[in-house]
Amino acid sequence: MNTPLINDTFLRACWRQSTPHTPMWLMRQAGRYLPEYCATRAKAGSFMGLATNPDFATEVTLQPLERYDLDAAILFSDILTVPDAMGLGLSFEAGEGPKFAQVVRDEVAVQALQVPDMARLRYVFDAVASIRRALNGRVPLIGFSGSPWTLACYMVEGGGSSDYRHVKTLMVSRPDLMHRLLAVNADAVAQYLNAQIDAGAQAVMVFDSWGGVLADGAFQAFSLAYTQRVLAQLKPSHEGVPIPRIVFTKGGGLWLAEMAKLPCQVLGVDWTVNLATARAQVGDSHALQGNLDPMVLFAPPERVAEQARAVLDAFGAPHVGSGTGPTHIFNLGHGISQFTPPEHVAALVETVKSYSQGQRSHAPK
Amino acid sequence: MNTPLINDTFLRACWRQSTPHTPMWLMRQAGRYLPEYCATRAKAGSFMGLATNPDFATEVTLQPLERYDLDAAILFSDILTVPDAMGLGLSFEAGEGPKFAQVVRDEVAVQALQVPDMARLRYVFDAVASIRRALNGRVPLIGFSGSPWTLACYMVEGGGSSDYRHVKTLMVSRPDLMHRLLAVNADAVAQYLNAQIDAGAQAVMVFDSWGGVLADGAFQAFSLAYTQRVLAQLKPSHEGVPIPRIVFTKGGGLWLAEMAKLPCQVLGVDWTVNLATARAQVGDSHALQGNLDPMVLFAPPERVAEQARAVLDAFGAPHVGSGTGPTHIFNLGHGISQFTPPEHVAALVETVKSYSQGQRSHAPK
Repeated sequence: MNTPLINDTFLRACWRQSTPHTPMWLMRQAGRYLPEYCATRAKAGSFMGLATNPDFATEVTLQPLERYDLDAAILFSDILTVPDAMGLGLSFEAGEGPKFAQVVRDEVAVQALQVPDMARLRYVFDAVASIRRALNGRVPLIGFSGSPWTLACYMVEGGGSSDYRHVKTLMVSRPDLMHRLLAVNADAVAQYLNAQIDAGAQAVMVFDSWGGVLADGAFQAFSLAYTQRVLAQLKPSHEGVPIPRIVFTKGGGLWLAEMAKLPCQVLGVDWTVNLATARAQVGDSHALQGNLDPMVLFAPPERVAEQARAVLDAFGAPHVGSGTGPTHIFNLGHGISQFTPPEHVAALVETVKSYSQGQRSHAPK
Repeated sequence: MNTPLINDTFLRACWRQSTPHTPMWLMRQAGRYLPEYCATRAKAGSFMGLATNPDFATEVTLQPLERYDLDAAILFSDILTVPDAMGLGLSFEAGEGPKFAQVVRDEVAVQALQVPDMARLRYVFDAVASIRRALNGRVPLIGFSGSPWTLACYMVEGGGSSDYRHVKTLMVSRPDLMHRLLAVNADAVAQYLNAQIDAGAQAVMVFDSWGGVLADGAFQAFSLAYTQRVLAQLKPSHEGVPIPRIVFTKGGGLWLAEMAKLPCQVLGVDWTVNLATARAQVGDSHALQGNLDPMVLFAPPERVAEQARAVLDAFGAPHVGSGTGPTHIFNLGHGISQFTPPEHVAALVETVKSYSQGQRSHAPK
């Protein structure tokens, strides 16, 4: 577990330390746009067959690192493992997205919820340990979870939703029940992330994928407060090594100043956010992660490169030298599309590395 | 056409003049949540049968005013009438949303686009005139159009989309084609809104429903610039009466300061926006319209009332007395859901009227 890191640029940027280039990884980088992923998934038989088998999870987690010069790996798993472990019965129908056999919409269902026994999530922690061994110090491994609110959306809706009608109805009609549901989720997520840290995750990320569907006021009360509750319970370090935390709220750009009060090191932002403005708001306290629109990857490679340079330019001159300063971790503003041409991703990765090195050689020392 | 208005609160608020209560209307207020609307639609046979028949359009436009004490009527129509008139072949399949027979994805298709002959949209202008007569001065009539970018999304995707992949691919790959498409749309929308004004629309609204899916930078270049191009061509008045303009970008809260440079009187905002912050940003130049989450209407009436009061409180003390000052037009942050219980809407309308009257009686004179 104590193999020294060969490439520590991602972790350095999390701690707002300078790096020779802007580190990058891609949300959902191990995914269906890669033919080798599809081949492993076919062997596994199903998405859950893949996610629950540590060998397969290790295999697909490393696939994008073989193709591209990425600076971090992220655990291959699903954000809905925690509610599945609560007994709600997760399944994935082909092309349909996640479904829960049971929905949580009334007092009886909410009161029955409990923080699950982490032994039911052992397959995740085994995958973390296995991936960490396979990486052998190449790049750091990021663990993750859905945010309490995002998990609640799926638990109440029973799957994806276009309007979040059921979860918002419960929230407005019975805020007491929603708070209880979110408290259970937060405590479960904290235990889940701590167990990932124990198993070898070198950073953890909270995906608040659906925080942005909430109204101002409701976001703070029902999403942000419970992300805070998760972070407050996380181990700050493991075996003496501090573990940085990333929080990403899709559609959360309006609340960045409030998110900057969270006890985390990195804030993820989507493409609607102006990185220069965001840097001015939070650059003295948090690193920023983001924010290329994943749809840009459907354009020809030269256009992809142009747009990637625009994102790096928007963040502006990188911190160089010793001490801490504003840092940027390049990423997409959402998960990569399954239809993305893999060769366009290669153009993106090469551009970010070379152009961001150039930014540093021109930066004032 | 010159019948004096009995209730001019909506128009006064557009011009930032004081009113005895906060005027309100609801996006998609004539719609499927009303049983009387469903009855008329059944008579018409289809959505397009309803929208293209001025008598039916008049009937459904007035239905919500019979039930609720609303302060404005909005033309019953669809945002896709303009691309339909361009020859793209609009249809609505049951429960499927809009579909175009032809998509616009390549140079040939873009170059073939023309501003349509407004005679093909005569049914819309006839509906405006008919509704105006039927209203007989009761409340003002709002005309509307989709924004150039929002129309482009449907024209390129061929219908609704979850990721806007095709339209964003065209935008990034061939910005020249996208600019040509948007210029045609903008000029068509301007002619369309001017013809609605000629037919009797007393205010016009541009629905930029999908501006919020764009990246910072792309929004300004591909959505805002073409909304500006529409507004620059609009008649400022009709028969000596000034015609206010409303611009609503769903998900546009981050760009409110830039939108405040638009030559319009009202900016619509969705529920992610803090109305106090928005008022501080734009209250000296624009009225604000919004922003209750339509999902709130699924909660019991007493909760609906509580949330409506919170929206009014967020905007804060209304402008009273003579001259101009910050004004608020109450609305939802998006169209009302077809599943909304009509009696909850009654609770909303009553609360907004009574509570906003109370705000004025306590306001400093």
